[in-house]
Order: sequence, then structure tokens, then C-alpha cells
Amino acid sequence: MVDNGSVSHPYYPRNLDIPHYVANTKTQAQLLVSVFGSFAVILVVTWLLSGRGTKPKRSVPQRIHLCWFTLCGFIHIIIEGYFGAYHSVLAGDQHLLSQLWKEYGNGDSRYIISDNFTVCMETITAVLEGPGCFLVVYAFLYKKPYRYIVQMLVSTGQLYGCTLYFYTEYFDGFIHNEKWHPLYFWFYFVCLNGFWIIIPFCMIVQAANNLSAAQAKYDAGMRKSKAQ
Amino acid sequence: MVDNGSVSHPYYPRNLDIPHYVANTKTQAQLLVSVFGSFAVILVVTWLLSGRGTKPKRSVPQRIHLCWFTLCGFIHIIIEGYFGAYHSVLAGDQHLLSQLWKEYGNGDSRYIISDNFTVCMETITAVLEGPGCFLVVYAFLYKKPYRYIVQMLVSTGQLYGCTLYFYTEYFDGFIHNEKWHPLYFWFYFVCLNGFWIIIPFCMIVQAANNLSAAQAKYDAGMRKSKAQ
Repeated sequence: MVDNGSVSHPYYPRNLDIPHYVANTKTQAQLLVSVFGSFAVILVVTWLLSGRGTKPKRSVPQRIHLCWFTLCGFIHIIIEGYFGAYHSVLAGDQHLLSQLWKEYGNGDSRYIISDNFTVCMETITAVLEGPGCFLVVYAFLYKKPYRYIVQMLVSTGQLYGCTLYFYTEYFDGFIHNEKWHPLYFWFYFVCLNGFWIIIPFCMIVQAANNLSAAQAKYDAGMRKSKAQ
Repeated sequence: MVDNGSVSHPYYPRNLDIPHYVANTKTQAQLLVSVFGSFAVILVVTWLLSGRGTKPKRSVPQRIHLCWFTLCGFIHIIIEGYFGAYHSVLAGDQHLLSQLWKEYGNGDSRYIISDNFTVCMETITAVLEGPGCFLVVYAFLYKKPYRYIVQMLVSTGQLYGCTLYFYTEYFDGFIHNEKWHPLYFWFYFVCLNGFWIIIPFCMIVQAANNLSAAQAKYDAGMRKSKAQ
């Protein structure tokens, strides 16, 4: 931590003015264990619950699919929703989620300075895609005809948001973290967010394949009934 | 136009520093006639072409649908693509499209100052959604089974991009134009962009209804074949 005149903080660029910043009381290890431990609990509980209640039993890919959208739903609504609601004060706050965002801020200080795009994108993610994820889970559990449509809408939102997230930071010259830092740049910024590029892309392809097959069969049926 | 020390420009906020700005040589009327005239030509040509080549003839809604995506394709690739490529120099340039953007900048000066989010969103729109619009047209002309899927992907991209476009400016307090100006704020900024909220939303609903109907029939067929 370098002293910037009257106020000190660990964020990049080093000349950021964050007068209300207070250092975390929890250690980095405590925060990482809290967040990844919570993710693990959500995944294990969803995995166990998704193995019950159907005959034949759900396949492993079907259960992983439900786990992904359940985890996303919790992350979008609780973690990103908290950011959307408290972005302006969290640098000076000690709530567990504020401390989590202050730790993540080492990988992207836009979360500490209420960056316009970041706040808007995260709020949309929390408000629309969070509930959307749970709707995907519900739609697949009850095999609703709109299940792949919601999957496609939610995944497209995630992919678009995350693409813009990386693109805007690239456009800024990666100034909001310590460039190429193994933990902050590569793990927090690139790796953690990379999941929301790769997996939504796969989810869009899967939904498109299923919807396209259904549409092809529907079109063939329409042609047949017209020919009769 | 107010003098800001050594340089003058018409944009808001008034203290923006745009040293390379040069005033348009074409009048506002010339620019508006050029752009809306081009839109009219594209719409009329698409309308006429879409009335040919099928028996029974395409319905009016089907032809309007093709007109919308054709117009969007041209706007995304030519007008927004030009902005993505030349955003950094257009304030000092006199190409017709630069002059057009300088005129539109009265409604949103983020286009004049290479605003980070605006450049990234417009580039994504030009590169992905532009060709995507023509793919929608192709897919509907040849009744491809993926036609509603591409429609949904492109329209979701448009809706997400335009929602963020309004939201980020709201978050900034509408500082990038002369607030409540009838032409610049209401027509350029609100009305013109409003089309890309309302119409993509309708296109998503239409695609979802069609895909959902196809999926419901497909699911019913699968249940039937399993029961036999």
C-alpha cells in the first residue's frame, strides 16, 4: 500500500482518489475461503438435490447444467446485486460483501470507484439475469417449452456483459489493476470472468442446437400438413 | 457555439476539451436529408424486393420484418462501423459520415470524445449484430430452422446494448447534451435510440413465441414416441 498524500489504498491506477477507503479487517485467505466455500456448498447441495425425483435419473451433464445456473443465480443476485446497491460506499465499509469487493478491486478497481459502465452492467446482471437463472432452473425441472429460450436469453446477456467488461478494460489499457499480477490480473480478472465467456457461449450453442432441431421438425410437419 | 478559451465547439458538457474539432461544412438539413433519405431508399428497395419471388406472396408483417433487419444491417455496419473505426478523428474530419456523427454528437457528445463504453458497444454492434441482421434476412428468405434463433440473438444484443446506452447516460446525469432540447435530447437521443429498445423487444417476443410453439410440439412428439 502506497501513501497518496493524505489517503492510502492498494488500487490501480495509483493516483485514484478514494478518500473513504478503509482497509479490510478480514484476511485475503478468510475472504477467499468464505466465497469459494459458499460456492462449493451451493454446488454440492444443487448436485445432490438434482439427483433426486426423476425416473430415469438425470444425467451428469443435466445435473452440471442445473448447478451452473443455480450458482449463477446466487452470484448475480447476492454478490453482484450487493455491488449494484452499495457500490458508492463499499470502499469505506466492512460488511463481508464489501470486504469481498474490496479484495476483488485489486483485480479491477472499477468496482471501487463506481465506474459508470461497471455499475450499470452489474445492476442489469443482478436484476434481470439473476432471476433469469432461477427461471432457467425452474423451466428445466418442469420441462417447460420455453426452457432453451430463457437459457439463450440469460446466456446471451451474460456473454454480452462480460465481453463488454473485458473490452472496455482493454480499451482503457488495463489500467485498473497491477498489470500481469498472477493473482489479481490473471486469476481475479481474467480467469474468474473468463468462465462467463466460455460457459455462456457453450450454453448458447447447446440451446441453439436444441431449438433448431425442434424448429426443423416443426417446419417439416407444417410442410407435410400443407401438402395433404 | 461558445468559446472555451482557445477552442470552441457546440457540445455538452461545455467544458469538454476537443482541440481537433472543426465545424461541419454541410448544414443540418443536408445531413438529415442524406441520412433519412438513405434509410428511405433502403426501406423502399427492400419492400419492393420482398414482394417478389414467393407464392403465396409474403404478408405485410413479413415484409416489414425483412425491412427492419435490412435497415439495421446497413446502419450497424456502415454508420456504426464507421464510428467504431474513426471515433478518435471524426471531430476534426469532414467525411459525410464524420459530419453526421458530429451532428448526432449534439444529442450525445460521448460520440465526439471516444467514450470508452460507447466505442466498445458500437464496435460490437457493427461487427456482430450488423452481419447478424443480414443473416436473419437470409435465414427468413430461405426458411432456415435457425431463423428465429438468430433473430433472438441479434435482437437481444441490440436491446442489451441500447439499454446500457441509456442507463450509462442516466447514471452520468444526462450531461452529454443540452438537457431537454427538443431536437437533440428528445429526437436524436431518446426517440431515435428508443426504436432499438421497442422493436428488438417485440422481435424477441415474436421469436420466443415461435420457438416455444415449435419446442412444445417437439416435446409432445417425444413423449408420444416414448409412450409407444
